[in-house]
Amino acid sequence: MLYIVLLHYPVYNKEGRVVTTSIANMDIHDIARLAKTYAAQGFYIVNPVPEQRSLAGEIISHWQDGYGAAYNRFRKAAFELIRIKESLRDVVDDIAGESGFMPKTVVTGAGLSGRLLKFAELKEMLNSDNLPYLLVFGTGSGIAGEVVDAADYKLEPIKGNGNYNHLAVRSAVAIILDRLKGV
Amino acid sequence: MLYIVLLHYPVYNKEGRVVTTSIANMDIHDIARLAKTYAAQGFYIVNPVPEQRSLAGEIISHWQDGYGAAYNRFRKAAFELIRIKESLRDVVDDIAGESGFMPKTVVTGAGLSGRLLKFAELKEMLNSDNLPYLLVFGTGSGIAGEVVDAADYKLEPIKGNGNYNHLAVRSAVAIILDRLKGV
Repeated sequence: MLYIVLLHYPVYNKEGRVVTTSIANMDIHDIARLAKTYAAQGFYIVNPVPEQRSLAGEIISHWQDGYGAAYNRFRKAAFELIRIKESLRDVVDDIAGESGFMPKTVVTGAGLSGRLLKFAELKEMLNSDNLPYLLVFGTGSGIAGEVVDAADYKLEPIKGNGNYNHLAVRSAVAIILDRLKGV
Repeated sequence: MLYIVLLHYPVYNKEGRVVTTSIANMDIHDIARLAKTYAAQGFYIVNPVPEQRSLAGEIISHWQDGYGAAYNRFRKAAFELIRIKESLRDVVDDIAGESGFMPKTVVTGAGLSGRLLKFAELKEMLNSDNLPYLLVFGTGSGIAGEVVDAADYKLEPIKGNGNYNHLAVRSAVAIILDRLKGV
């Protein structure tokens, strides 16, 4: 069981300032459609700022219940996977309550190093057990250090055809889901 | 040699109206970074509307020469791959003039049928010859019928884990480039 988590947590940016990223409309749309395409169990959007969660809720409700639901039923089907939470802890509790198992957290990032989980290893784990896995993506300057440190696994970074390694989070989700669940 | 083409051509939408899609800022950013990551030779944005081409030119120049170039040199490196053209014919002429070979056109789309080129076949072609291939992506309601009919190849659609097949063009570019050129 695979769940996608898009994390908007305070991190230090390259100027050393603490930044909490905003929820981007395009991230919601693109990642919800990817989650639906690759049969993820859920897509969690995590943001500690109440106004950000309200805004995300309004966008989602437009496509689930409002004009958008009638205009585009495919978007509605994808948006049904979305759940908005305040913290990663709330995500873990939600999945544990629903599935009866504590989920394993797998963090992603272009700059991860140390002991890394290979794509093939995670694919095998997803195929061989029926436990919940949280695939965590950061926004802006990446995933907060304490979240990386507390994770069960760090996924190997995406490599293209060279040293350039600066993809949009939307693109990273697309590539990683296809590697893990594509047929 | 692989070139990416993002086509904004008049097509009939689901209500039967003729629509030319606009150039989306997020498409430019995401696809340029993907093209750079997977070492594409170039990323062509094609739009027949002069005002749309001007707007795209301004966005690109901001990241190549303006404030953005100093703010984010990784974005500048990706944007160097972008070329804006009025028609697909202009793209073909540009590549033929540069490489000395007429490029083969490969169209993509969730709804393509008939004789389809497999991902593995195209990957093999890209590895075994040094000829230019144009990978053409549509926007909005897809690629205009006459472009599909005139193409050399139709690429098989992306399949996920089910029947849902409604990805953003940005996501499709990510997945297809990774399948063709990922390591």
